[in-house]
Amino acid sequence: MLIVKKFGGTSVADKQRIYNVAKRCAQEYKKGNDVVVVLSAMGKTTDDLVDLARDVNPRPPKREMDMLYTVGEQISVALMAMALDNMGIPAVSLNAFQVAMHTTSAHGNARLKRIDTERIITELERRRIVLVTGFQGINQFNDYTTLGRGGSDTTAVALAAALHADACEIYTDVDGVYTADPRKVPTARKLKEITYDEMLDLATSGAGVLHNRSVEMAKKYGVTLVVRSSLNDSEGTVVKEEVSVERMLITGVALDKNAVRVTVQGVKDEPGIAFKVFNCLAQKNVNVDIILQSVSHGDTQDISFTVDHDNLDEAVEVLRENQKRLTFHSIQADTEIAKLSVVGAGMVSNPGVAAKLFEALYNENINVEMISTSEIRITVIVAAKDGERAMNAVHEAFYRPNE
Amino acid sequence: MLIVKKFGGTSVADKQRIYNVAKRCAQEYKKGNDVVVVLSAMGKTTDDLVDLARDVNPRPPKREMDMLYTVGEQISVALMAMALDNMGIPAVSLNAFQVAMHTTSAHGNARLKRIDTERIITELERRRIVLVTGFQGINQFNDYTTLGRGGSDTTAVALAAALHADACEIYTDVDGVYTADPRKVPTARKLKEITYDEMLDLATSGAGVLHNRSVEMAKKYGVTLVVRSSLNDSEGTVVKEEVSVERMLITGVALDKNAVRVTVQGVKDEPGIAFKVFNCLAQKNVNVDIILQSVSHGDTQDISFTVDHDNLDEAVEVLRENQKRLTFHSIQADTEIAKLSVVGAGMVSNPGVAAKLFEALYNENINVEMISTSEIRITVIVAAKDGERAMNAVHEAFYRPNE
Repeated sequence: MLIVKKFGGTSVADKQRIYNVAKRCAQEYKKGNDVVVVLSAMGKTTDDLVDLARDVNPRPPKREMDMLYTVGEQISVALMAMALDNMGIPAVSLNAFQVAMHTTSAHGNARLKRIDTERIITELERRRIVLVTGFQGINQFNDYTTLGRGGSDTTAVALAAALHADACEIYTDVDGVYTADPRKVPTARKLKEITYDEMLDLATSGAGVLHNRSVEMAKKYGVTLVVRSSLNDSEGTVVKEEVSVERMLITGVALDKNAVRVTVQGVKDEPGIAFKVFNCLAQKNVNVDIILQSVSHGDTQDISFTVDHDNLDEAVEVLRENQKRLTFHSIQADTEIAKLSVVGAGMVSNPGVAAKLFEALYNENINVEMISTSEIRITVIVAAKDGERAMNAVHEAFYRPNE
Repeated sequence: MLIVKKFGGTSVADKQRIYNVAKRCAQEYKKGNDVVVVLSAMGKTTDDLVDLARDVNPRPPKREMDMLYTVGEQISVALMAMALDNMGIPAVSLNAFQVAMHTTSAHGNARLKRIDTERIITELERRRIVLVTGFQGINQFNDYTTLGRGGSDTTAVALAAALHADACEIYTDVDGVYTADPRKVPTARKLKEITYDEMLDLATSGAGVLHNRSVEMAKKYGVTLVVRSSLNDSEGTVVKEEVSVERMLITGVALDKNAVRVTVQGVKDEPGIAFKVFNCLAQKNVNVDIILQSVSHGDTQDISFTVDHDNLDEAVEVLRENQKRLTFHSIQADTEIAKLSVVGAGMVSNPGVAAKLFEALYNENINVEMISTSEIRITVIVAAKDGERAMNAVHEAFYRPNE
C-alpha cells in the first residue's frame, strides 16, 4: 500500500510533536507500506516570516513573499527527516524543486498543474519515507509559488492522485468532520462519512477542516480522503464520492466569520457594469462569494458582494484604480458579518430545508441580510454578533435530540 | 560594468543593516552598472538552525543539514529584494536551484563545478539587481549542498568568473587586509594590495578575512578581488596576481586558534602506515594541515597532525573505526595550541625570514612545537596561551617602526 499523510503546522510545532508525527509515520512504514508525508511550516513560522517581511517592506512583492514563505516547509521536512533518522528509519526530504511540483504562475495563489513522480518513486523504491514540502510549487519561470490557504492539503491530494496512492490521510487538530464546530455547538456530532460535494460546500462555508481546492481535486481524481486527528487514534471521517450510511437531512452547519461585505455604491445602471466590476476582481484573483445586486434607484444602483478578509485590501484597491470606468461613487466595507451555511446532499430532494432554516432564525429573532444557495447548500449572512447563536439554533433545529 | 558584491551575515543581521546594504547596491545600480549581490544568512540564523537540528537529532544527516542550512540565505535574498523594492529599485532573488549552481555531491563541503548564467543574464538585461544565495549549491542528484566555511565568498568569486564581471567586492566587518589582526596587534597596517598567493597563505593560516577556496578560485580565473568594509567607504585591499607597490619583506602575520593537534600514538613502524592514516582522513574530507611524524621508538611511532576544531570529532571517529588496520594504541587531542604564520612573497628571495621569526620567539621565551613552511609562508605551532604575545613579537620584529 502507498499512503500519503499530511500534517499541519500545529502537528510539527515543536520537538515533541515532530517525534509524535515521526512515530506515526514509522508505524505505517514498519507495516511494509510506502509512506509519503506532506508537511506544513512549523507552528507560527509563517506568521514570523510575514512579520519579518512587513518590517522591511509593508507591501512586499508577492514573488519575494513566496521566496520567503517556502523556507517554512523546508525547515519542517528537514527536521522530520532528522527525527526519523534518529529513530533508525530511512527518510529523505524534498522541496518543490526537487519533486518538481509545477504550478501556474500566480504568486500566493497558484494552482498545481503537474507533479513529477520520478524522484519520489525512486526514493520509495529505496525504502525511504519521503517527506514533501506542502503549500509550495514552482512556476514556468522556475520561481517559487505558494498555493494559498490550505495549500498543503492540496499538495497531499495531488501527490496521492499522481502516485495512485491507496489513501490520503489529512491529520488535523480535530478528529474528523462534525455536523457543526464542536467548540461552539455542544450537540455537534462527528460524521463517519461525507461526500465530496458536501465537504466542498462545508469548506467554502467556513468549516475549516479541509480547504475546498483540495476537496475539488480529490473529487476530480477520485482520491479517498480520511480526515483524522494527529493527537489520537480515533477513526476520523472518510470523504468520498458516495456514502453508504443512511442520509440525514443535512450533513453540517458551518459558520464563517472571516467574510467581509463590500458594497460598491452609486454604480451607473447600465448593461454590463456588474460584469466589469467582477471582471476587475477576477483579474486580481480575488474570489467573490455571495453577490447581491440592488434594484436601481434613479439611474444608479448598489452592488454588494462578500470576500475573504484577506482579499479585502486588494479588492478595494483594484476597484478604486478603476473607479472612473466602473462609475461608482464610493465603497463601503462591513466586517461585522457572519456567513452561516447548512449543507447536505439530502436537501436536493427535500424542499423543506430552507423553511426550517428561516424558521429557526426567525424564532431567535435573527435578521437575514443576504442569501445564497446551491443544490446542496443554503448560506445566509447575519450580523457577526448573532453568528454563534444562529449556528446553535439552526443545528438544534436539524439535529433535535429524539427526532 | 558588471559588479559582483558579497555581503556576509553580520551585514544583513537586521532591518537597518539590510537597508544599508540595499543603499550601497542601489548606488552602484544608479551609476548604470549591472549589479549581482551574493548574501549569506542573516546574523545568527545559521547558529539557530544548528540548534534546531541538534535538538531533534544530535547527529543530523549531512544531506538534511544542508536542506536546513540553505533556508538561511534564501531568507536574506528575499528580504533584500523587498528592501530594494521598497526603495523603488527593481530586484529579484535567486536560490541555488534557480541559478543552477552545480557542485560536487559532498554535503557540507561541496565544491562548485559549474554555474548556469542564463537566468542571471536575463534578469540583468531586464535591469534588475540580482540577489543570489551564497554558500549553497545543488549536486547531480538535485539535492542541496553547502560549500563549507567561507562558502559565500566562493559563490561570489565563481559568479564573477562565470559572468566575466569587472570586479568582485567582498564586504566584511573589517576594511581590508591587515599585516596582522588590528584588534590584537596595535601596530598592524592595512595593505593596499596583496597577491593571490600571499592571501592564500594568510587565509589558510587563520586570517579570517577571506576563505582560501575563494582566493584559489579568484587566482585560477583571474578575478580581481576587493576586500572592503560594509560599514564605511574606505578603499579596502585589492587582491590580484601581481602587486605594484614596493615589497615589504613579509605581508602579514596571522594567528589561528581554531587548530587542534591530534596525535596517533603507538603506530606500527611499517611502510605505508602514514599513508593509510591520511587516506582515511581524506576519504572523510578531513583537511589535515601540519604533519609531524615522530622518529620511531622501538617498533612503533607517533604521528601528529593539526586539523580544524570543526573536523576533530570526525577525524577521531574515522581513525577509531579503522584502529585495527592502522595499528595504533591511542589518540590524543590537544586543543591548547595556536598556529602562527608569517606570509610574504618577499621571503622567497630572502632566507633571513625564518631566522628573524625564531629570534623574535626566542627573545619572548616562547617554545615552538611544530613547524611547517611553504615558499612564501612559515607556520609554527605554539601553546595557545602564548599565541597573541607571539604574534605581537613577530609583527614587531618585521614591522619595527622607523626601519
